[in-house]
Amino acid sequence: MSKSIAGPEIERLIQLLARVPGLGPRSARRAALHLIKKKDQLFAPLTAAMAEAVDKVRVCSTCGNVDTSDPCTLCTDPRRDGTTIIVVEDVSDLWALERAGAMNARYHVLGGTLSPLDGIGPDDLNIKRLVGRVAEGGVSELILAVNATVEGQTTAHYITDQVAGMEVKVTRLAHGVPVGGELDYLDEGTLSAALKSRTSF
Amino acid sequence: MSKSIAGPEIERLIQLLARVPGLGPRSARRAALHLIKKKDQLFAPLTAAMAEAVDKVRVCSTCGNVDTSDPCTLCTDPRRDGTTIIVVEDVSDLWALERAGAMNARYHVLGGTLSPLDGIGPDDLNIKRLVGRVAEGGVSELILAVNATVEGQTTAHYITDQVAGMEVKVTRLAHGVPVGGELDYLDEGTLSAALKSRTSF
Repeated sequence: MSKSIAGPEIERLIQLLARVPGLGPRSARRAALHLIKKKDQLFAPLTAAMAEAVDKVRVCSTCGNVDTSDPCTLCTDPRRDGTTIIVVEDVSDLWALERAGAMNARYHVLGGTLSPLDGIGPDDLNIKRLVGRVAEGGVSELILAVNATVEGQTTAHYITDQVAGMEVKVTRLAHGVPVGGELDYLDEGTLSAALKSRTSF
Repeated sequence: MSKSIAGPEIERLIQLLARVPGLGPRSARRAALHLIKKKDQLFAPLTAAMAEAVDKVRVCSTCGNVDTSDPCTLCTDPRRDGTTIIVVEDVSDLWALERAGAMNARYHVLGGTLSPLDGIGPDDLNIKRLVGRVAEGGVSELILAVNATVEGQTTAHYITDQVAGMEVKVTRLAHGVPVGGELDYLDEGTLSAALKSRTSF
């Protein structure tokens, strides 16, 4: 909006809302208006929730998950099987696998994939900490739940090389994950099936 | 999410984000994760913008627009033609007309349309204040920019009756083919209206 229709505070709110994934310039205006109309039911509670979350959000120093505590809820949950680590590219993949609820293991978030063309090497990812977790012992299986892309598979191979010689079995998700597909978009059934029929890497 | 993956603050953030128009349960998770990742660039500024807006938002007691001042920016702008009032159903319609930038007039937001079936009568809308603005004088034209629905037209007729006898011209938006629109996709009502009010070329 070139000319100011509403006050600068509302204009700024719309501009920032437009940068939230899922919203664009037009839907940001609709969202802002809806928030203003539902001031007590939605706008104020959402603002409070954001203020609380923005202060408390931490990246887990063990697994790379985001949570409000470090180590995170999943790393400290005593009911989880600590002998299995599911390695994912991104927190969104972790959330997708947790929604599928197929395994009660621990996780490790890489924060991306190896991509020499983009200048992303092993040191840019959370790989050293993963190798450390395996070296500390007690881990019998690494499930490489990376995306079925070239970068994902390259990263899987690199990790396999890094833990070669250690007492750990490395597996990967079963085929069933569509080639080129992203975990976050898959249905829970497919994700469960892919986990159950995981194969040796 | 039935079980808690992230901390309760993040879960609550996701739940509230899912109620923002344009986002759903899945995109709310993606949005939350994006906010967390872009903590300094987006999450913190957006939270601050929301906190500022939620406190400052006002409904203009003159025209019903939302703004951070009352009377609003449009009602106090001395460069606007106060003799013409564009009557709209909703603030979103006001914003749409302002983006079009076709007129430099003042506005009046009704807050809905008459709908006896839904129990919405004249007293539930911002009509009395509109009649008052006309009665105060200085207004020569009311443009009824209500939607071309049964409720919109009923509301337009009601307002016309209310200001009958006052020194004010009541007009409505022209019906016709949208600019860039294809005839094939238009409804019969629009086509009939466009034919009836055809203009010389």
